[in-house]
Amino acid sequence: MHVVIVGGGFAGLAAAQQLRKADLRVTLIDRSNHHLFQPLLYQVATAGLAPSDIAEPIRAILRRQANVSVRMGEVIGVDVDGRRVHLAGGEEVAYDRLVVAAGAETSWFGHDEWQPFAPGLKTVADALDIRHRILTAFERAEWCDDPEERERLMTFAVIGGGATGAELAGAIVEIAMVTVRRDFRRVKTDRARVVLVEGGPDVLATFPAPLPGKARKQLEDLGVEVMVDTFVTGVDATGVQLGEQRLDAATVLWAAGVRGVDLGGRLGGEVDRGGRVSVAADLSLEHSPDVFVVGDLARFVHQTGDPLPGLAPVAQAMGRHAAKNIVADLRGDARAPFVYRDKGSMATIGRSKGIALTGPFKLSGFVAWVAWALIHLFFLVNFRNRVLVFVKWAIAWFTFERASRLIWKLDPSGKRER
Amino acid sequence: MHVVIVGGGFAGLAAAQQLRKADLRVTLIDRSNHHLFQPLLYQVATAGLAPSDIAEPIRAILRRQANVSVRMGEVIGVDVDGRRVHLAGGEEVAYDRLVVAAGAETSWFGHDEWQPFAPGLKTVADALDIRHRILTAFERAEWCDDPEERERLMTFAVIGGGATGAELAGAIVEIAMVTVRRDFRRVKTDRARVVLVEGGPDVLATFPAPLPGKARKQLEDLGVEVMVDTFVTGVDATGVQLGEQRLDAATVLWAAGVRGVDLGGRLGGEVDRGGRVSVAADLSLEHSPDVFVVGDLARFVHQTGDPLPGLAPVAQAMGRHAAKNIVADLRGDARAPFVYRDKGSMATIGRSKGIALTGPFKLSGFVAWVAWALIHLFFLVNFRNRVLVFVKWAIAWFTFERASRLIWKLDPSGKRER
Repeated sequence: MHVVIVGGGFAGLAAAQQLRKADLRVTLIDRSNHHLFQPLLYQVATAGLAPSDIAEPIRAILRRQANVSVRMGEVIGVDVDGRRVHLAGGEEVAYDRLVVAAGAETSWFGHDEWQPFAPGLKTVADALDIRHRILTAFERAEWCDDPEERERLMTFAVIGGGATGAELAGAIVEIAMVTVRRDFRRVKTDRARVVLVEGGPDVLATFPAPLPGKARKQLEDLGVEVMVDTFVTGVDATGVQLGEQRLDAATVLWAAGVRGVDLGGRLGGEVDRGGRVSVAADLSLEHSPDVFVVGDLARFVHQTGDPLPGLAPVAQAMGRHAAKNIVADLRGDARAPFVYRDKGSMATIGRSKGIALTGPFKLSGFVAWVAWALIHLFFLVNFRNRVLVFVKWAIAWFTFERASRLIWKLDPSGKRER
Repeated sequence: MHVVIVGGGFAGLAAAQQLRKADLRVTLIDRSNHHLFQPLLYQVATAGLAPSDIAEPIRAILRRQANVSVRMGEVIGVDVDGRRVHLAGGEEVAYDRLVVAAGAETSWFGHDEWQPFAPGLKTVADALDIRHRILTAFERAEWCDDPEERERLMTFAVIGGGATGAELAGAIVEIAMVTVRRDFRRVKTDRARVVLVEGGPDVLATFPAPLPGKARKQLEDLGVEVMVDTFVTGVDATGVQLGEQRLDAATVLWAAGVRGVDLGGRLGGEVDRGGRVSVAADLSLEHSPDVFVVGDLARFVHQTGDPLPGLAPVAQAMGRHAAKNIVADLRGDARAPFVYRDKGSMATIGRSKGIALTGPFKLSGFVAWVAWALIHLFFLVNFRNRVLVFVKWAIAWFTFERASRLIWKLDPSGKRER
């Protein structure tokens, strides 16, 4: 039996690893060559970590698993009846069982024209683009003699008050207030404005009360301006339009939403407004039981009645479960329905605050941050020898230093940079 | 007195630091925001180190030096009579003394059309481009069913047998033979061909006999094919033309030469074939004693009759000397002529070989590598807290692992990557 897995994120990787002892062949296909530890991607965007600190070649992770081949390539379509996936470039790969774990991408809610002015944060390239914008804004402000333009350069707008938005806003405030403060001679970086714009009444609204209120307080204590019930009606080269109100900002970051990748719509199943593919109780498609959809691309309605959120632990659990059902097929056993045991969720705010929810426990402040740090330590260290990342973090935590404050761009024009 | 320094490489940074106690203002202007430890750039190109391991914001390095301002910007011209530099964007900066330390860039010897097929190695963007090409070649070879094309994908040509060429070739062989060997299932990466092409009769020809011969033997022992007396007559999308001979290679890297940046030609002084500006004994321009040229951009004829080579210690010594002569001007003292005390030179080959020359001592093999590693350790650790780099290296040395094997590209088209 040949199992093809599309995507080497948390869900796809978990599915591949769950199949390590199964008597079948696995091919894992991903557009990039690496697995990305996305929960820490905001640290790359804010110059705290280098991309290689949170990414690892998929082949290296699966090196010892002899039944897996890894293929770098882009899956552009699936022939569900003929049981083959189509790769960009024209090649096809046949499968007996398919696991689609292709994930989600940033959604500008129908306003793709905002993308150049307000990048999202899903890939390494996104993170480096954001880092470039943040660092360049300070450099330009330093030598800007027009007070209005300098204020615009020193204004950072983060759109979307979910975990990514709160993490970005907290990190940018820390950079401005502490990290680069003594590096600049003319501009007062600690007068930077960091504005977090949220359309709903609360930040981190997926958490139960009183956590959103506590998160908002922690953000404001750090120096973030939090605007709730505020909708973005336009983004352009100089700032953000918020209905009647104008926010001039040189750096605008988009953390307001994601949607399932286009491939989800090409599987023939039902797709919701967020681009997610509805899956049956066993995580396969109703009409094509050979095809499983897992991770952020899947819409699975939980026993509570809500669809499961796009979190790493959910993705891993789904990936493992799909793999188990494939092994059940191989053995002729019945497939089992997926049941998710909620392990909680958390968000970090700045360098030592946060909120966390686990079972009946609602944590906030330093305690939540410690829980967050320990759990990420555990996951990262588990994921090969990333102990160094934590040495780096420990140094950064005590010194307020950020190790990756580099401005450079790959130069597509072929013009040389010195 | 206002001193403007153009370039934050070894020469410019040394000049700025030498002026730390002088009673004058210094403005250091660089196109990028970081100082780059170029001697280790080949490690970024071969996935051993991350860019931030060998680069540091210039402002952070000079943070405590109150008389320096750092400005990110591109100097496009100098008005020597009016004593001002012109920045891209139209601004001007007036100076009393100018230190031009703008460095060198890759030279394709009049064949700029080869550049897209054979990138040089001078910037972080160059290094990431090369890393992308090397890693992608293995990925494509893994799934290539055409034996001829697979062989082409597994052929790596390095043009130029100087230190950079030898270092790149040695590192690529190590990647192919050891690092990625167990990661690939179909292609035998240890059958990769790494060809080092040198136009002269020797590799590392700037070293005295018997070192070039020993270097060649060490390269060949590692598995590098060394071709000497071989001129490149063409480079295209599929490989290299060597006179009558054809070398099909998917990855071609250019380490054959550099030339002073264009700015050198705009100072009004004498410029040699390599784009270097001839300087007087005090390192200033004959016709404009207010302007010093130092580092790779300067042509300074040594007491031995040869121009000084483009090495970090030479650049640092020149930068410091120009700064001392500026202080002499300030005090009304006479300027001193520059004298370079040769501290030797070295090149590393693979993970534990090399050659080194220091005074009467000619070292080769493991001893030379240890000398190389210790000296680079000393310099890097000196250059802020880069101890982590050496922890990383120590781990890599024992495990043969390379920590930065990431394939990604900034996407200029705006098309999203997952």
